Amino acid sequence: MGEEIREVLTKLSETLGISEKDVKKHLGRSIRLMKYRGLEYAVFRRELLGYREGTVILLGEEPLIVHGYPSIQRLAFIEGVKKHMIDKVVVEEKMNGYNVRTIYYEGEVYAITRGGYICPYTTSRIRKLYGKNIEFINKEYGNYVLVGEVVGTENPYVIYDYPEARGFDYFVFDIMDGDRLLPLKIKKEISEKYSIKTVRELAIIDKDDISTLKQVINKLEKEKREGVVLKDPEHRVPPLKYTTIYINIKDIEEGMKHPFDEGRSYLFSRIIRLIAQGYEYNWNDDELNRIALKLGKAILEPAIKSLKKRAEGKIIASSYVLVFPSKQDLEEFIEFMEALGVDFITKIIEERKEEVIVELMKLKETHGIYSKMLETGYSPLD
Amino acid sequence: MGEEIREVLTKLSETLGISEKDVKKHLGRSIRLMKYRGLEYAVFRRELLGYREGTVILLGEEPLIVHGYPSIQRLAFIEGVKKHMIDKVVVEEKMNGYNVRTIYYEGEVYAITRGGYICPYTTSRIRKLYGKNIEFINKEYGNYVLVGEVVGTENPYVIYDYPEARGFDYFVFDIMDGDRLLPLKIKKEISEKYSIKTVRELAIIDKDDISTLKQVINKLEKEKREGVVLKDPEHRVPPLKYTTIYINIKDIEEGMKHPFDEGRSYLFSRIIRLIAQGYEYNWNDDELNRIALKLGKAILEPAIKSLKKRAEGKIIASSYVLVFPSKQDLEEFIEFMEALGVDFITKIIEERKEEVIVELMKLKETHGIYSKMLETGYSPLD
Repeated sequence: MGEEIREVLTKLSETLGISEKDVKKHLGRSIRLMKYRGLEYAVFRRELLGYREGTVILLGEEPLIVHGYPSIQRLAFIEGVKKHMIDKVVVEEKMNGYNVRTIYYEGEVYAITRGGYICPYTTSRIRKLYGKNIEFINKEYGNYVLVGEVVGTENPYVIYDYPEARGFDYFVFDIMDGDRLLPLKIKKEISEKYSIKTVRELAIIDKDDISTLKQVINKLEKEKREGVVLKDPEHRVPPLKYTTIYINIKDIEEGMKHPFDEGRSYLFSRIIRLIAQGYEYNWNDDELNRIALKLGKAILEPAIKSLKKRAEGKIIASSYVLVFPSKQDLEEFIEFMEALGVDFITKIIEERKEEVIVELMKLKETHGIYSKMLETGYSPLD
Repeated sequence: MGEEIREVLTKLSETLGISEKDVKKHLGRSIRLMKYRGLEYAVFRRELLGYREGTVILLGEEPLIVHGYPSIQRLAFIEGVKKHMIDKVVVEEKMNGYNVRTIYYEGEVYAITRGGYICPYTTSRIRKLYGKNIEFINKEYGNYVLVGEVVGTENPYVIYDYPEARGFDYFVFDIMDGDRLLPLKIKKEISEKYSIKTVRELAIIDKDDISTLKQVINKLEKEKREGVVLKDPEHRVPPLKYTTIYINIKDIEEGMKHPFDEGRSYLFSRIIRLIAQGYEYNWNDDELNRIALKLGKAILEPAIKSLKKRAEGKIIASSYVLVFPSKQDLEEFIEFMEALGVDFITKIIEERKEEVIVELMKLKETHGIYSKMLETGYSPLD
């Protein structure tokens, strides 16, 4: 066994308070070792030893546990807020992007995805955007972890254009101190003081004031926005989330470009959300017909279009445009995607000073399945 | 170990040509022991030792293997028939019911479901309907197995009303000799000679005559029928199946009465079928809109209706009316459903001579999940 892995085992054993033998048992399965630049880190790929999925242990000089962000209970019915909350409810906008924890650790800022990976691309962009701000927060408050949504059009995960967002942007929605979500007032103070954008606070309501909450959600519906996260001001009870009909259908439409990838995984859950909405809003026949048509088209149209594309010999992939601060960042990102087992192609579109513009294509399962369907005429499912 | 189980082990070991130890290894998992009246039998719950899932070993005086009916490859595109078939293709109607193998064995007729269980209800009804006919076939041909679809409104599995069918009816589509599907001519001869109904033969075409095949399918589409099974006249290559747009959407509509039961399992596969149909038929905007609306309504409407029903305190279950020849048959069927772990209620509606009319309600997972949603307001899925 190499010196390096022995050191890692010792650090993990000490940090987690379990034997090295037990650490070994989990390595490679539940706990995965990764490296970004000089920093080794351990990723919890599932809930384990009382730590949430997505928890990370940064294995520098002084190992640090970055806890996973808790998963948020989804409401089927807006009315459910009355049963769950205590008194006041802060209604924050839920943005359509990906969840990123940022932390300053041993001299550098790192951006950690929901699953617990330091994403080299996200890290490189966050450093440019907020590197200094996050460093200053660390100087004042210690190991606080900012949690926010990366949104916009320049990322390798979720492309969604917000008028208020830069191509790559970061909106903080919580600050964690260890395992604990800080009161929203503190998040607000720190974000304002250090000029970090936050998600919009849309209202503060009494938990029984469903009519105001519905008004807020109806407005988001019209503005084609994702939805809300409902929080107790002090996080005395866990937050709740609720999404618009618009985004539930939009997710299906996007997903069904690749039915055997996102399509398959999005379909049922979004449909269940719509069913609950149809019930709570008590749709009449016109409303039902209007939404049924949208849903049906969102399911069929993109999938048939992709099948045509494949029949014409085109590749079925999802495409992203990324802007790397340097070529080193690009190389590190490529290594990262390879380590995660993603099937992809990159192509440099343009190289400027401090800007390497790259097209990333993630190849889809749908590509191969459609190919075989077209070749044999057989259905891939019974 | 009891005398009886010892005897079963010996019989299975001899019939399968493997050691008793190996038999034991599979018992309770891959091979399940069941009993119907005096007859013990072993069910292959999955493919094993070269036998298909649904294979049954009848453990009477002289054990007999009843092979599973092969699963039929589904076509995504009608055009696929050209690549798969040899020359001629027999186009048979695919009926919407459940697959049942019938056999005369040591003095009695038994009806075996696709999964390999002797269904006491189906057996009791088939005996009344075709008991003598099947016995005579056995006298002339030995252990031939009839394979057909039970259809109609009086069964505990698939309720679908065919004008040409009695409340409980049986349409043969193949005869098996051991593992082998007999040429269709022989099936025809035997069925005619012994007055057993068969599924309709809709056409015999040349494999390249896609336009005739499409005409046949379009007619079924208009008549709201399920689809076709395409067979080589001598079964030199395996059959193919293809279903109408009508039934693909109808399945979803039926299934979505219970979204967390059949709904969840039907949804994706039927949608994939529709996508392939949209591509092959090259739907224009009007056609796409028409089918999208139907699909959307088939998904949302029954599920919202069920949720309303549950909110009003009603039970979410699927309901069947069964006609048993005797009370003993009813009791045996109840035992059978209990052994399979089905959650159900029965209620005798009427008792006459040789007719016990029973309402069967199968309780659905959806019942409990909807209850919890309504109680907490939480979504059962993320």
